[in-house]
Amino acid sequence: MPRPLNDTFLRACLRQPTAYTPLWLMRQAGRYLPEYNAARARAGSFMGLATSPDFATEVTLQPLERYALDAAILFSDILTVPDAMGLGLSFAAGEGPRFARPLRDEAAVAALRVPDLDRLNYVFEAVRSIRKALGGRVPLIGFAGSPWTLACYMVEGAGSDDYRIVKSMLYARPDLMHRILDINAKAVAAYLNAQIDAGAQAVMLFDSWGGVLADGAFQRFSLEYTRRVVAALEREHDGERVPSIVFTKGGAPWLEQIAACGADVVGLDWSVDLGAARRRVDDRVALQGNLDPAVLFAPPEVVAAEARAVLDSFGRAQRDDGGCGGHVFNLGHGINQHTPPEHVTALVEAVHAHSRALRAAD
Amino acid sequence: MPRPLNDTFLRACLRQPTAYTPLWLMRQAGRYLPEYNAARARAGSFMGLATSPDFATEVTLQPLERYALDAAILFSDILTVPDAMGLGLSFAAGEGPRFARPLRDEAAVAALRVPDLDRLNYVFEAVRSIRKALGGRVPLIGFAGSPWTLACYMVEGAGSDDYRIVKSMLYARPDLMHRILDINAKAVAAYLNAQIDAGAQAVMLFDSWGGVLADGAFQRFSLEYTRRVVAALEREHDGERVPSIVFTKGGAPWLEQIAACGADVVGLDWSVDLGAARRRVDDRVALQGNLDPAVLFAPPEVVAAEARAVLDSFGRAQRDDGGCGGHVFNLGHGINQHTPPEHVTALVEAVHAHSRALRAAD
Repeated sequence: MPRPLNDTFLRACLRQPTAYTPLWLMRQAGRYLPEYNAARARAGSFMGLATSPDFATEVTLQPLERYALDAAILFSDILTVPDAMGLGLSFAAGEGPRFARPLRDEAAVAALRVPDLDRLNYVFEAVRSIRKALGGRVPLIGFAGSPWTLACYMVEGAGSDDYRIVKSMLYARPDLMHRILDINAKAVAAYLNAQIDAGAQAVMLFDSWGGVLADGAFQRFSLEYTRRVVAALEREHDGERVPSIVFTKGGAPWLEQIAACGADVVGLDWSVDLGAARRRVDDRVALQGNLDPAVLFAPPEVVAAEARAVLDSFGRAQRDDGGCGGHVFNLGHGINQHTPPEHVTALVEAVHAHSRALRAAD
Repeated sequence: MPRPLNDTFLRACLRQPTAYTPLWLMRQAGRYLPEYNAARARAGSFMGLATSPDFATEVTLQPLERYALDAAILFSDILTVPDAMGLGLSFAAGEGPRFARPLRDEAAVAALRVPDLDRLNYVFEAVRSIRKALGGRVPLIGFAGSPWTLACYMVEGAGSDDYRIVKSMLYARPDLMHRILDINAKAVAAYLNAQIDAGAQAVMLFDSWGGVLADGAFQRFSLEYTRRVVAALEREHDGERVPSIVFTKGGAPWLEQIAACGADVVGLDWSVDLGAARRRVDDRVALQGNLDPAVLFAPPEVVAAEARAVLDSFGRAQRDDGGCGGHVFNLGHGINQHTPPEHVTALVEAVHAHSRALRAAD
């Protein structure tokens, strides 16, 4: 498979010069789009979308029809992996995900195994189908949850406000927690490599709940297992580099350490100035982010101004020493379901126009 | 009113030498204590407790009967101030707080006024009553919500997951947001000064939602107004310094800037290493924190070990240049309602014993 026609995203991930700053949006195929809601209604449920390669292809491409985004991301869910481990995933209407068989005792943890990847074939089929449908327009990003973030759901059995159950296990029985994380790391690495084999041209690890951990615990229970996953990833496929992105929501306090985990790109939430973040990592990785998704509730001219401010904070990609920084524009979190779709148009136009102007002024 | 018999907390706030590291716990008078739940049942509701000086005194003193804590904190709620502004506070059973008249349009914002402090007399009476009941055992901390955190509730009308309404106003109508924050800052400063006049020996500003703001927005919409409040506070009362504490949950990315806001103490959540935080502020302020409250779910020996780790991370209070750092041990967030009370005993003993041993080794 050849490089995509628009490889700006891949180049930015690898800190190569680009004509403008590429952007995509976390959860870009989502409930803010009427066409997504229509497809979901036809599919019957969220998992009906995610488990059907046809539906997954359809909704993955929806935002690309509307907006000049520079990457597609596989439509799926991070909980496919623990579901394949037999924990029994369901999404109740109006609620978040729920596992029928959460890991609550030593016996359940002892019985946990790396799942047979055949149980996730629907995901790899979706990747192949999306690649075909994209026809090389833009690259396709695959993804998975981080070992720690998956463990939160697997132990809590659902979302949580205080992570009481999983943190109780972490502090009281770190041996059990390490066993879960070790299995998750192996499963996630195999899962992402299978996505790469199926055609994913970059992969992203969502450490959505790394930020709830205390300093010290984050390094031992989240970052260490993220590092193991990244180390096990295929770096190249069909002669092309496959960049990896790690995003820890709330991870700003640990930016330098996350940047040293082996990933090509570090995702940032909106709590940090990109320029300051860039100085902290000295362009050893590319940065992805970091507009507050709430900006998209403001009028289009405010959206454009805030997008320009993010681009300005990153500054010139070109370094004085001849090297290059990398910036992939994104939100600092998934796009909110109440976002007016036309505000996204303003965002995309502002990012492309202003970053082209910045390059031209170089 | 003389200094309390145990002034360790006040000394640590002011970076004066102490024989051990003082501790208190955010929300130490709370639902993890059976005697608190009994009092609440008698009072009929949370606001029944908070609006009665007798009940407020009773529950404020409850944790001090059980544990050798080094400070008491007024039992109250940050939403007393917007309630006094006429927004109509209520607490529905099993839910969080709710305002009957949230600030949703220009007219509501235009009508907002600094409230008559007489409407908050029940709070100042509680402060006087608690001081009397304490008999000088330990100092009493007064508190308020930060202007931004109050604005979140005042605009959203309740707690929020995504702060969509308040952030929409912030980005789309910053003029309205600044008007709310200006009034809140004046109200909070007057409120805290009235608490000081009534006998509060230290005051704390809870910027519980500062951490949801983007870099840039945090400085303009949260920290700037915190700074105004701190600048307007009485620094001394009855010849004694009244230390001020500012706590921004999720504020680690902005630690240096928060530390320059004029407060004597900066509270920290558990996302940062205290030693690293101390180096960032170079002991120009004292630090308060920062044990993950979830540690208290673990067995007592783990609680003690994690408490020692926090003390060790702060290191020696005494500086090589003859100066002194200040550390007030606390959790990084309010104590969880599911905390076993006997684990708090282990925490208090470990903090006192280990910090005395550290001083002795100096």
